[in-house]
Amino acid sequence: MKTTVVEQQPLYLGIDGGGSKCQVVLMSAENEVLAEGLSGPANPLRGMQLATESIVDATTQALTRAGLPPATMAQLVVGAGLAGVNLPEYYQLFSAWQHPFASLHLTSDLHIACIGAHQGRDGAVLICGTGSCGLAAVNGQLLEVGGHGFPYGDNGSGAWFGLQLLKQVLRSKDQLIATTLMTELLQAELQCSDTLQLVSHFMHVSPTDYARLAPLVFTAAEHGDGIAQQIVMQGAGHINAIAERLLTIQPAALCLIGGLAYKVEPYLAPAVRQLVVPAAAPPEQGAVWFARQASANARPMGTTA
Amino acid sequence: MKTTVVEQQPLYLGIDGGGSKCQVVLMSAENEVLAEGLSGPANPLRGMQLATESIVDATTQALTRAGLPPATMAQLVVGAGLAGVNLPEYYQLFSAWQHPFASLHLTSDLHIACIGAHQGRDGAVLICGTGSCGLAAVNGQLLEVGGHGFPYGDNGSGAWFGLQLLKQVLRSKDQLIATTLMTELLQAELQCSDTLQLVSHFMHVSPTDYARLAPLVFTAAEHGDGIAQQIVMQGAGHINAIAERLLTIQPAALCLIGGLAYKVEPYLAPAVRQLVVPAAAPPEQGAVWFARQASANARPMGTTA
Repeated sequence: MKTTVVEQQPLYLGIDGGGSKCQVVLMSAENEVLAEGLSGPANPLRGMQLATESIVDATTQALTRAGLPPATMAQLVVGAGLAGVNLPEYYQLFSAWQHPFASLHLTSDLHIACIGAHQGRDGAVLICGTGSCGLAAVNGQLLEVGGHGFPYGDNGSGAWFGLQLLKQVLRSKDQLIATTLMTELLQAELQCSDTLQLVSHFMHVSPTDYARLAPLVFTAAEHGDGIAQQIVMQGAGHINAIAERLLTIQPAALCLIGGLAYKVEPYLAPAVRQLVVPAAAPPEQGAVWFARQASANARPMGTTA
Repeated sequence: MKTTVVEQQPLYLGIDGGGSKCQVVLMSAENEVLAEGLSGPANPLRGMQLATESIVDATTQALTRAGLPPATMAQLVVGAGLAGVNLPEYYQLFSAWQHPFASLHLTSDLHIACIGAHQGRDGAVLICGTGSCGLAAVNGQLLEVGGHGFPYGDNGSGAWFGLQLLKQVLRSKDQLIATTLMTELLQAELQCSDTLQLVSHFMHVSPTDYARLAPLVFTAAEHGDGIAQQIVMQGAGHINAIAERLLTIQPAALCLIGGLAYKVEPYLAPAVRQLVVPAAAPPEQGAVWFARQASANARPMGTTA
């Protein structure tokens, strides 16, 4: 019986696909949240198979939770904001994907975050999570800053903070700098105090693994550790620089998003902080808004063709 | 006929196995260089198969060039200084290797560099190549500094310089810092000016790839580029800090080794520079010296057993 209802009114799915997780939301034509789903990485940089499996997995979860049959997937109008699709090769890979949906509208994770945060109005977002990047949308102009990847980009991100922590702990263990509380915190976190074992642990880790260590830098800084305080100031400086670049096109408001945003915010410049507002809706709802706009724009073309 | 000679006198092989290449030298009992060989990476971090293949390949080359039959391999007394064998897991992997030699004596690449540079006498070495690390040997005490790996260690190394270059070029392209001559140099080097293509290029590169870019930083600095000059000062500061730590156990002399050493040397502190001497012999000859000592120490035990 439910499928009859579904066939009459379009169903929308919004996807926020990042390097750590894939968050989806299923919404009705009336903008009502029907269900959510959560799975693993949906970043094509980690491989197309993993990314597409994560997307289908999270979608299946949402349909199940909404009490809808699996076949409903073929009726979904989907908006997806995916980390990495700003790179042409990954955009092409995803465009060529034989997806199981009615339609799939692609953009970057940053773009849907901005749309969601400001509900489609002009504004800016600054993501400080595993990675770091910013986007401002003002009068049709899109300005994107950072987000180039780790370790060459993503300055001030969680991964960046974790890497700085490890670098300084190793320098301290080599007696090249003073001792730091971060050494104790890292050793307690990893249950390991031997330098060679610590190094072995980090030989094949991902940006996400580094980002998990970021809170330890703030803990050490809050306990007066000078080296940690320097890292915090430097990282916040990177985030502040991204924010100030976004402000050059004069967005009326700025949303800080990501697991580390609330840690970094107190260290930002007053001119930046006074523009900060809470996000109105999460990125995956921004993806739904994007899908609505994209499919509304596409429909007349389809009709006249 | 030659094999008869070989059976009478031991032949020594010295191996310097790093992350980029494997250099071997074949030497007579009279310390005469018979032939050399060169192959790919012999760092177990890149995989045991690649490492052992590189070693056998370079050894075969040396035997061929010396006009010796392949079967001579089984008679070689071998000393190997390998990057990574300071990590217990890789030391164990190499110790378990069913090698084709008469005997194999293992130590770190850093140790054989020091032995070669000072011909077995006390002293210190500081490697500034793809990676960075230092070792001082004084009165039986060995002090090792750095060399933990990239990107968390190897500060001031070629890989570090290349990464700093890329980081600052990306920041400059995002207009977060002033323009830098390094952008032009990098774009010319890679024949690519598009930011996304640049980023794609670096998505899966190795420390060796980063290290190849290091000379561009010095070129830009020499042409007055302020951002490049800051990187040079910071990198040289890292190398200087390693040197000063080594000097705490008072080695009489310090050898700077590696492709970037001559670039960094002018920026080191006077107290460090006044101890710098040229290396007496290359690391692979240090490995032969190590094999001689190790087999001489082992022989009486073998005799009495």
